[in-house]
Amino acid sequence: MNDEGIIECLCDLSYGLYVVTSRLDDKLNGQIANTVIQVTAEPPRIAVSISKDNLTHEYISRSGVFGVSILEESTPMKFVGLFGFKSGRDVDKLSQTVYQTGETGCPLVTENVLSVMDARVIDQTDVGTHTIFVGEVVSGEILKKGRPLTYAYYHETKKGKTAKNAPTYRTPAPTSAVQTSAPERRPGTMVKYECDVCGYVYDPGEGDPENGVSPGTPFEEVPDDWVCPVCGASKDQFSPQS
Amino acid sequence: MNDEGIIECLCDLSYGLYVVTSRLDDKLNGQIANTVIQVTAEPPRIAVSISKDNLTHEYISRSGVFGVSILEESTPMKFVGLFGFKSGRDVDKLSQTVYQTGETGCPLVTENVLSVMDARVIDQTDVGTHTIFVGEVVSGEILKKGRPLTYAYYHETKKGKTAKNAPTYRTPAPTSAVQTSAPERRPGTMVKYECDVCGYVYDPGEGDPENGVSPGTPFEEVPDDWVCPVCGASKDQFSPQS
Repeated sequence: MNDEGIIECLCDLSYGLYVVTSRLDDKLNGQIANTVIQVTAEPPRIAVSISKDNLTHEYISRSGVFGVSILEESTPMKFVGLFGFKSGRDVDKLSQTVYQTGETGCPLVTENVLSVMDARVIDQTDVGTHTIFVGEVVSGEILKKGRPLTYAYYHETKKGKTAKNAPTYRTPAPTSAVQTSAPERRPGTMVKYECDVCGYVYDPGEGDPENGVSPGTPFEEVPDDWVCPVCGASKDQFSPQS
Repeated sequence: MNDEGIIECLCDLSYGLYVVTSRLDDKLNGQIANTVIQVTAEPPRIAVSISKDNLTHEYISRSGVFGVSILEESTPMKFVGLFGFKSGRDVDKLSQTVYQTGETGCPLVTENVLSVMDARVIDQTDVGTHTIFVGEVVSGEILKKGRPLTYAYYHETKKGKTAKNAPTYRTPAPTSAVQTSAPERRPGTMVKYECDVCGYVYDPGEGDPENGVSPGTPFEEVPDDWVCPVCGASKDQFSPQS
């Protein structure tokens, strides 16, 4: 048993994917989280682990309220990119989606969402890089029936990445050998390009049909206004894979 | 928005299913839990919500250590029944399965399991009926590759029930109308029987092929040594459904 074993084991834990929101006065923000759990049935209480680096953490700490939107399986990667790979310090995320206001005043995102709820913080535990916020649920509403998006589905089927501030982030393995010469790139070779923001890999063989790029399209021929389907980064934020 | 809405919303949260174990001196116990989450990546820390009524809660509180076994999708219902619907005060659960001993001295169940880990409690939060234990993972081992058992799969595909001490337990809805006469039971009618212990329903039309009872077998003809496939209750602990 060793650290590598621990990291591998933790990958077998199962989660859903949620947008956790909060507010500070009239400022609103939200982020993707995978660690929402119900911790008691009576009264209904939930907990979530949030990175101290995140703006949502600051808002929850100061306002004592948070909202949860349970994402549906068909949630587009671009939506996950907006809430999971961008900071509310740079982008007004809520202005780019649809939401209603919960009893706590938190924005409750309703786009790509099965149900929403909001909670008042009753306790919080400092666990190092993150804080576990425990909240009593004060309201909840089902918007539609459907399959929730799971973390496994996001990774395995949608090929999604994990943001650096997630409790489950893994440092990528270093490249195994020193590169002694530039990789060979014959004209016409279908080079893969990686998003510098979120790690998404554009594979020319697969293209990005969901966003109008046919399989077999070299990266160079992808339209200039195409953006990373995971995090929304522009084409010039991609680098060729070696 | 109302309490019923809250309860319905909470059902859309996604979880895995785990055996959480602990020890007290040389006494060992374990229980099913669905609320294991990773709360930080560096160092690797996990949290779990455990009912104060459970023997495992007493052991974790007093020893400060716990183990987690991540169940695989094919875990038999009888195994879930042993760890999820019986108390360690009545049954020596660990004597009925296979386990190894972790660095903390906790038993780590290895039967029907993908990976095991154990942790030392670094913090705990009283959340009412339950305690959230936060633990630093001290060792982990992958036993095999496979699909983890999720709470959704357990309920939807395996038709499993939720134990009363689970954070996600829902009080069953009362029967909708007063029964003014005994239900009609013509000879030969395939009456369904419900397990008084865990709520599992024996449907004669489906039988219990996994345990040698063919579809179409009336409850009366099920062998006397057959037991509830969910919790292991004997046949005399079943009542006809009205």
